[in-house]
Amino acid sequence: MSVVVRNIRRADRSTADAFAAFGVATIHEAQGRTGLLEPRLRPIYPGAHVSGTAVTVSVPPGDNWMIHVAVEQCRDGDILVVAPTSFSDAGYFGELLAVAVQARGVRGLVIDAGCRDVAELTRMGFPVWSSCVSATGTVKETLGSVNVPLVCAGQLVRPGDVVVADDDGVVVVPRAAAGRVLAASRAREEKEAVSRARYRAGELSLDVHGMRERLARKGLTYIDQEADD
Amino acid sequence: MSVVVRNIRRADRSTADAFAAFGVATIHEAQGRTGLLEPRLRPIYPGAHVSGTAVTVSVPPGDNWMIHVAVEQCRDGDILVVAPTSFSDAGYFGELLAVAVQARGVRGLVIDAGCRDVAELTRMGFPVWSSCVSATGTVKETLGSVNVPLVCAGQLVRPGDVVVADDDGVVVVPRAAAGRVLAASRAREEKEAVSRARYRAGELSLDVHGMRERLARKGLTYIDQEADD
Amino acid sequence: MSVVVRNIRRADRSTADAFAAFGVATIHEAQGRTGLLEPRLRPIYPGAHVSGTAVTVSVPPGDNWMIHVAVEQCRDGDILVVAPTSFSDAGYFGELLAVAVQARGVRGLVIDAGCRDVAELTRMGFPVWSSCVSATGTVKETLGSVNVPLVCAGQLVRPGDVVVADDDGVVVVPRAAAGRVLAASRAREEKEAVSRARYRAGELSLDVHGMRERLARKGLTYIDQEADD
Amino acid sequence: MSVVVRNIRRADRSTADAFAAFGVATIHEAQGRTGLLEPRLRPIYPGAHVSGTAVTVSVPPGDNWMIHVAVEQCRDGDILVVAPTSFSDAGYFGELLAVAVQARGVRGLVIDAGCRDVAELTRMGFPVWSSCVSATGTVKETLGSVNVPLVCAGQLVRPGDVVVADDDGVVVVPRAAAGRVLAASRAREEKEAVSRARYRAGELSLDVHGMRERLARKGLTYIDQEADD
Amino acid sequence: MSVVVRNIRRADRSTADAFAAFGVATIHEAQGRTGLLEPRLRPIYPGAHVSGTAVTVSVPPGDNWMIHVAVEQCRDGDILVVAPTSFSDAGYFGELLAVAVQARGVRGLVIDAGCRDVAELTRMGFPVWSSCVSATGTVKETLGSVNVPLVCAGQLVRPGDVVVADDDGVVVVPRAAAGRVLAASRAREEKEAVSRARYRAGELSLDVHGMRERLARKGLTYIDQEADD
Amino acid sequence: MSVVVRNIRRADRSTADAFAAFGVATIHEAQGRTGLLEPRLRPIYPGAHVSGTAVTVSVPPGDNWMIHVAVEQCRDGDILVVAPTSFSDAGYFGELLAVAVQARGVRGLVIDAGCRDVAELTRMGFPVWSSCVSATGTVKETLGSVNVPLVCAGQLVRPGDVVVADDDGVVVVPRAAAGRVLAASRAREEKEAVSRARYRAGELSLDVHGMRERLARKGLTYIDQEADD
Repeated sequence: MSVVVRNIRRADRSTADAFAAFGVATIHEAQGRTGLLEPRLRPIYPGAHVSGTAVTVSVPPGDNWMIHVAVEQCRDGDILVVAPTSFSDAGYFGELLAVAVQARGVRGLVIDAGCRDVAELTRMGFPVWSSCVSATGTVKETLGSVNVPLVCAGQLVRPGDVVVADDDGVVVVPRAAAGRVLAASRAREEKEAVSRARYRAGELSLDVHGMRERLARKGLTYIDQEADD
Repeated sequence: MSVVVRNIRRADRSTADAFAAFGVATIHEAQGRTGLLEPRLRPIYPGAHVSGTAVTVSVPPGDNWMIHVAVEQCRDGDILVVAPTSFSDAGYFGELLAVAVQARGVRGLVIDAGCRDVAELTRMGFPVWSSCVSATGTVKETLGSVNVPLVCAGQLVRPGDVVVADDDGVVVVPRAAAGRVLAASRAREEKEAVSRARYRAGELSLDVHGMRERLARKGLTYIDQEADD
Repeated sequence: MSVVVRNIRRADRSTADAFAAFGVATIHEAQGRTGLLEPRLRPIYPGAHVSGTAVTVSVPPGDNWMIHVAVEQCRDGDILVVAPTSFSDAGYFGELLAVAVQARGVRGLVIDAGCRDVAELTRMGFPVWSSCVSATGTVKETLGSVNVPLVCAGQLVRPGDVVVADDDGVVVVPRAAAGRVLAASRAREEKEAVSRARYRAGELSLDVHGMRERLARKGLTYIDQEADD
Repeated sequence: MSVVVRNIRRADRSTADAFAAFGVATIHEAQGRTGLLEPRLRPIYPGAHVSGTAVTVSVPPGDNWMIHVAVEQCRDGDILVVAPTSFSDAGYFGELLAVAVQARGVRGLVIDAGCRDVAELTRMGFPVWSSCVSATGTVKETLGSVNVPLVCAGQLVRPGDVVVADDDGVVVVPRAAAGRVLAASRAREEKEAVSRARYRAGELSLDVHGMRERLARKGLTYIDQEADD
Repeated sequence: MSVVVRNIRRADRSTADAFAAFGVATIHEAQGRTGLLEPRLRPIYPGAHVSGTAVTVSVPPGDNWMIHVAVEQCRDGDILVVAPTSFSDAGYFGELLAVAVQARGVRGLVIDAGCRDVAELTRMGFPVWSSCVSATGTVKETLGSVNVPLVCAGQLVRPGDVVVADDDGVVVVPRAAAGRVLAASRAREEKEAVSRARYRAGELSLDVHGMRERLARKGLTYIDQEADD
Repeated sequence: MSVVVRNIRRADRSTADAFAAFGVATIHEAQGRTGLLEPRLRPIYPGAHVSGTAVTVSVPPGDNWMIHVAVEQCRDGDILVVAPTSFSDAGYFGELLAVAVQARGVRGLVIDAGCRDVAELTRMGFPVWSSCVSATGTVKETLGSVNVPLVCAGQLVRPGDVVVADDDGVVVVPRAAAGRVLAASRAREEKEAVSRARYRAGELSLDVHGMRERLARKGLTYIDQEADD
């Protein structure tokens, strides 16, 4: 039952790279509000923004052996996506593993568990989105799998999918949909630029987007505050 | 049942502004330990410290329509206070809405739910105190209310009340009590300055505040560690 | 039942100081994976790294009187370790107490409850590891104890034990074991330096640590992705 | 600042009593989806269903002194509503206090904190809705207030308001609205009886409530599963 | 993007039914420790144990419209599996919907959100596994989808998969694997019967399963307690 | 580092047995409010009430091997106390292990992690206090220790200590203190019986315990509700 899938099909490299120009919130909207990992995953330092292709690692609780196995399957432009088979807040990943995967061009880690050595990871500029920070170590006793589809923080992630992460969280874009979602993200961004300019000039979204009539139809009532309450 | 209350009575502007000189912890004490919102509300970046008058927004879970409605009711010196009618960790508020309310002089957002675009909000210097960060978007389908009294993170907030927020959290001061609480905050600060100086000089609070006798009366016993344990 | 133990035996000063050169994760491993406080304790600002000897304070929920009592028992090189007898998220400790203990050479605070004035504490460079930030004040009505063994965030801490804290969390080293654990930490660090160099050069931990045979024996299988899924 | 308000105006007794015929969910809907306490309040045993008038108690964390004070203010048909001023999971209320309030005709307790002696309370048939069960005792050192408006589990409760609690949770109905909400609850129940009968006969809500056209207009699409996936 | 998939392929009926003879823990083990939903899903009353085929419903937060749509797609032997697209503790499902789906032969509900009317559901014998109980109602404003693959409480569930639920939780068995997993569950149960008989007779698992040598090899040491500690 | 300590000194059997006559809340008070495990430990069924001597098991996250090892160390009148070295919600213990330990006279299990087969455990009358119910299995790969002092749910438990558990939670009484705490529990119970009788007769604790003067001295003020609010 424990497998390592080699030579996975990854989303197109230039497409995956291009996603880093868009925020996670924008991509999530552009994708029809799907693919967002649960907000318990938080960056270990502010300001990181990466995109890449997923190498997935299914790990037992408190056992990081399969991350060591996964390193060999990583290549330039990948993002490691790690999910334990049941809840764990152990620190699966630290500076040594970061050195190892950074040497292979991995851009970051997304893990629904803990990571450690966050001061060193910050200095190295290796970003991690994790559900907690924990110095707890792990053992190397039980197998798991690499590059199988898995659920990470509530979302299905398949190997080779595009993963984008920034200060708002993490979104996964299925490999097959990457081109379409990238275009939709661009379109959304352009539309937002127009709204932004009008808002900055003091216009109201009620008018920019013509919401007043629908609000009235739903029954919204405007009143003035009474003389005294 | 869905109303927008216009022309609310706000706390006196200079009073509201003056609160920014005092920490949330000081104001909370000065107000008799009332008005503090639950500590799950955290700032999206460190170092912000604002005071202002509340514009309140009661929103359905996962629906930010009423925040758009509320923008028009905001004016210079306000702070938006948003509470969902049941738990939500959706990202109700992002950079576009921040541009819109900043254009009207709003100083910050307090929300018992999620916000997004935190990198942009940080760059803009628009502070938010929220219960989480989440890229999840919201819909615009169901009405709520603007400028009604509401409970946000465990505290009753009325439109026009003073809201103060810093790295320690958020406190609300009722409009009618603002002058009195401001004076009490000043008095408290002055008293603390004296204690600070004495502590810095190495004096003990046990002596500065004469606690020793009351401690002894309650039964506190001093012993020396035994030779070995 | 309320006691203050004076003149506790502390771990050797130079040993306690020397721990600051090692990360919490390293020390935890070097100590056989024991002594790590639960990861809910987080630093109020990034980058702090301290070691010292524990002065322990057992406090009632929402009552910080015994911290005032504890100040007198602190001396240069100590770290305050505070645990409430049942859950509390109150803000037990703020800038005034920090001034008082910093004046006595205390290096930081570890508390399984809330702290406040985090902006000032950051400016002062007084690090705190706490389970939350909260402006809620506390009362001074009920006794507790100082320098008794207590459980803080899941770990037994005895007065005089070594406490080390960094961005990864907090670890306690029993006084009697300090010398041995310090040596083991050094040894571990040296071993890791070798791994780090080899990883940086692109070697895999599978090879550096000879894991391949054991993985195969456990049944790990390598397959190539099929033509299409 | 610590007061006990005597001789509060209570909602009409027969109205308050009549609410016990309706479920909390029904009343919450009938009241325009307001007044529901957060779902962390759970009954200590299944099957209880009570309504009554609120006697409110604002308590410090870990201190139940004011509940003793409140007993004297209770009378037949009341429900005690207790909220700590900051989070507490202490066991504020046990069998002895239940004997005391049951002797005065109190019908139950709603508390945003812990209770204890749940085996005895179950045997006595004294229902409690609490945020946890905890044997932790409390002290009697610090004052609070009785019969002041307070926020309990996210809702404003005023003394004399109607409180209804069942296996689904707890709802508060403002004293002034009690008659109107009771009538609306009855109307809602009658309407639901019609739906229930039709559903039981196999009719679909899509048809009973004519939802199909609106669903289609919003864009809902029906497809058949493909030959194989 | 909102679809209702009709005429889904369901797991074989007799196979799905046969799973009810096995506990969730047994099936989870028999399936190689996969498919278990997160333990936050708890039964609303003890003692229920059902198996059936999944009809899946993806719902917006706080909006139960699609459950009404899903009723029509249910048939005898199904289990409803509902997951919101982001966190919600609203009460999506109550007695009226239970009447409607029970009339179509649905055996239970699995929902990663709240349900209500639990007293009535208990009386009806309609079991629900939910992440909370909440009287909060929902709106009918936003579309979702029926019978699409979704992630519920951390597991991928596809329409037609077998779902089994008991007091221990909920497990999903992929449609294609149902026969194989059923056989493995039977085999496991038989093996456990042998162990049970031997344990009951006082034999130790250390001997029954021959663990002593492997424990010794790993380094387990037996010592006797010293004269005094 | 992995040891099994045999032939531990247990608290006197008749003393340990006698504790079952007293509630956990009473014992906790009688012991000076110490020894109570955190309230996240809940019984899997209502009504159980046991006392016994602790056999302690320190287990790795997700690995129950050491519980199998511990069975042999159990004897009539013991209670198993299990704590993982870092957070785990796995189901460490089920019906088979219960058969094994029940055959040796073990009276219950206290575990700061998950248990499973709760329907069977209920039928067997084998009580468990756990932090969750979970069907997740565990592996048998990593050693831990049996009969070492450990921290379980926030309290230090030593092998041979008395453990008492009922619907309110779990308390530990150090072996050396058992006789004294038992006597204090009896005394407390007798005192409470007097209060109970007086409360039942309608007397107020304010009078029974003479609290009125101290309340007045602290500043409690009684007012009557104003004509209208």
